[in-house]
Order: sequence, then C-alpha cells, then structure tokens
Amino acid sequence: MAQLADNEVFRAFATYAALVLVKMMLMSLMTAFFRITRKVFANPEDAAVHSKGGDLKKYLRTDQDVERVRRCHLNDLENIVPFVGVGLLYALSNPDLSTALLHFRVFAASRVLHTISYLVPLPQPSRALTFFVGFLATLSMAFSTVRSLLLL
Amino acid sequence: MAQLADNEVFRAFATYAALVLVKMMLMSLMTAFFRITRKVFANPEDAAVHSKGGDLKKYLRTDQDVERVRRCHLNDLENIVPFVGVGLLYALSNPDLSTALLHFRVFAASRVLHTISYLVPLPQPSRALTFFVGFLATLSMAFSTVRSLLLL
Amino acid sequence: MAQLADNEVFRAFATYAALVLVKMMLMSLMTAFFRITRKVFANPEDAAVHSKGGDLKKYLRTDQDVERVRRCHLNDLENIVPFVGVGLLYALSNPDLSTALLHFRVFAASRVLHTISYLVPLPQPSRALTFFVGFLATLSMAFSTVRSLLLL
Repeated sequence: MAQLADNEVFRAFATYAALVLVKMMLMSLMTAFFRITRKVFANPEDAAVHSKGGDLKKYLRTDQDVERVRRCHLNDLENIVPFVGVGLLYALSNPDLSTALLHFRVFAASRVLHTISYLVPLPQPSRALTFFVGFLATLSMAFSTVRSLLLL
Repeated sequence: MAQLADNEVFRAFATYAALVLVKMMLMSLMTAFFRITRKVFANPEDAAVHSKGGDLKKYLRTDQDVERVRRCHLNDLENIVPFVGVGLLYALSNPDLSTALLHFRVFAASRVLHTISYLVPLPQPSRALTFFVGFLATLSMAFSTVRSLLLL
Repeated sequence: MAQLADNEVFRAFATYAALVLVKMMLMSLMTAFFRITRKVFANPEDAAVHSKGGDLKKYLRTDQDVERVRRCHLNDLENIVPFVGVGLLYALSNPDLSTALLHFRVFAASRVLHTISYLVPLPQPSRALTFFVGFLATLSMAFSTVRSLLLL
C-alpha cells in the first residue's frame, strides 16, 4: 500500500483523475442551476416546489440550454470513464513519469476546453478538436497499457 | 497483491463499491421490467416480440414511469462513477479505517435512499437531500486524496 | 508496483478492460459518422458547418439510426462501468487465473455480440441474451469479490 502512495506516476494519476471526476460532478450542479433559474423540470415533484399550487405542466418541458448542459455532462461520462479506467491501468504499467504526466495534463486540459467550447458555445471545429485531443490521449494510454501487460 | 487484499480500507472499499455497482446494475432490470409490463419499447425488434404481428407503433412510445427509472439510472451513473474512481484512489492514499468506512457507508446509504426517493416518488427536498449527501461524501474523499497524493 | 504489473490476473484484467473501454470509445466515432452522413445534429453550431448558410432547422432533428447508436453507447456505459469497477476489485482479490480469464473473455465477447445484435439489428432474443451473459459475468465477479474481501 505504502508503495502505491509513494509512486509518483500513481500520485500524478490520482491527482488528475480526482480533478476531472470533480469537474464532471460539477455538471450536475450546473444542470440543477439551469433547471431552477429557467424553471424547467423533468419530474412533477420538482416542478411542484416552484409552481406554488399553480399549473405544473408549464414547468415540465425541455429547454435548449438545459439539454445542452446535459449533453455536455453525458459527453464527459463517455470520455472520463475510459480515461479513469485506462489511465489507472496505464499508471500501474510502469510508464515514464514525464510521458504519463503529458497524457494526464493533455486529457485534463482537453476536457476543460471541451466544456467551454460546448457551453459558450464556440463555433465548430472547436468542440470537435478538444474532443479528439482527449480521445487520442486515452487511446494512446490504452495502446501503451496493452503493449506492456498483454495477456489474452 | 496479498498486501492489498489484506488491507482493511481496501477491503471495505471493495465491499461498498461492489454493492453500489450491483445496485446500479439492478436499474437495468427495473427498466426492462417496466418496459415489458407496460409494453413500451424503444426498438421495433423489441416491440415485435409483444405485438404478435399487430401494429408495432403503439408499443414504440415513451412512458412516464419508464423515463423516471431511466433518469434514476443515469443519475446513478453520474454519481457512482465518481464514487468508484475517487473512492479507489482515496482507499489507496492510506486514510484512517474509521473515516473511510464513514464515507463509504454514507455514500452507499445516500444512493439507496436516493433511488427510493426517486421511484416512490417522495416529495422534494427528499431526493435533493439524498443526492447532496452522496455528492459531498465523494467530494470529501476527492479533497482528501488530492491533499495526500498531490502531484500536478 | 512491479508486483502488480507481474501478476497474471491483473495483466489479463488490464488487457480486457482496455479492450472493452476502447470498444466503448468507438461508439462515439460511430455516432459522429452517422450524424455527419445523415446530416442530423443536436447542436446548431454543428448543423451550421453543414447547412452552408441555409436553413439550420432541417438538420436539427432526431434520426432512428443515430438514436439506435446512442442507445447502444449508453448500454455500454451502463454495463462496462460495473465490469471495470467490479473486475478490478475481483482481480485484486486473488482469484484463479483460469476462472478470471473465463469471466473476462465471456464479458468481452458478450459486449461485442451485444453491439452487433443492436446495430444490425438481429431479432430478439439475440440482444437480450448477449446482455444477460455479460450481466451475469459481472454479477459473478461481484459475489466472488464480496465473499473474499467482505468488510462492512
């Protein structure tokens, strides 16, 4: 145990993985913020808090801004899950610290820039580029992991 | 290897992580149960099993109860993924066993109560409170992990 | 660290986990491919690239094939996340190599066949069977992990 917590690649992975996971969690708060300020809900029991006895139906609709945040959150899930899974295995396959740090930093930066591109929104291909940079960082770690540890 | 399987914090994490992941998997069965009993499907090939040669279209619709279970499942994904990722790194950062157990138990309880609040459904703020308790447990582990292992 | 990278069960897990995570990542590319070839977008800034100054609205719609790929991707997330989480804990609980390999191979095969069943699509119960085989492989690893490491 002490060995893992002393290993620099593992420590770097733990830091970046915790940061991108917390960043992903913040998307839940952003969805809640937009739902409450726009008064747009998916559940009647949520709308009931804001309708104060009035008509629920006008609060149960979809809103372009809420849907945009939700798509951004789902895109995080689809990309951060592979990063955390692959990145942990990669960190345990004894890579160089500098190479590992490069992968972790590029991925973390790509996800922050992806969220900015999605929510502003910036014109394409901003979002597509930030997506692909993070995607390639994860793929590169997956290839390196399988090459180091392959046992089928 | 033997060291990890002997470590009490790791064993506690493994137990709670397996439990919440199995709980999340059960949401798939619940969605299937509602789809079959309500005869509400997303795919024509699924509706075909139940239409017995009749009109497929009446089985291809959305249903409030099915959508509620699906939102609950997605909320599990959005929250259990960070718990499992952050929790593993936290468990490997040598925390006190009692502090770690407190985090794992609070998170697991919050997700069971969140599902009950969502599916009954209980009036708000039941669901919001259970969400935030689990959210804060994961955030607390993330801060502790980054403080212990920080390497940027 | 060297111990983990030398452990055969861990190496087998790392290989299969990396493969199924990369397979899941490819669903993003398939969604992008269908969106671009069918000219069906969720975001105005994406549609703008293809509308060349024309009417955006006709590109902002839903398409059955795009939605099918997205459901398949979400089903991967719902099932591959528990496999990666539970499988790692299971791999660290000192199982037999041959038993572990059986679980990993059955799960990986079930997900490839699930995707084929979903996207062709094959008539039911093809997709349901491939789903359940993978589901049971993950459940079996979860029970084995909890039995080995239980600490509540």
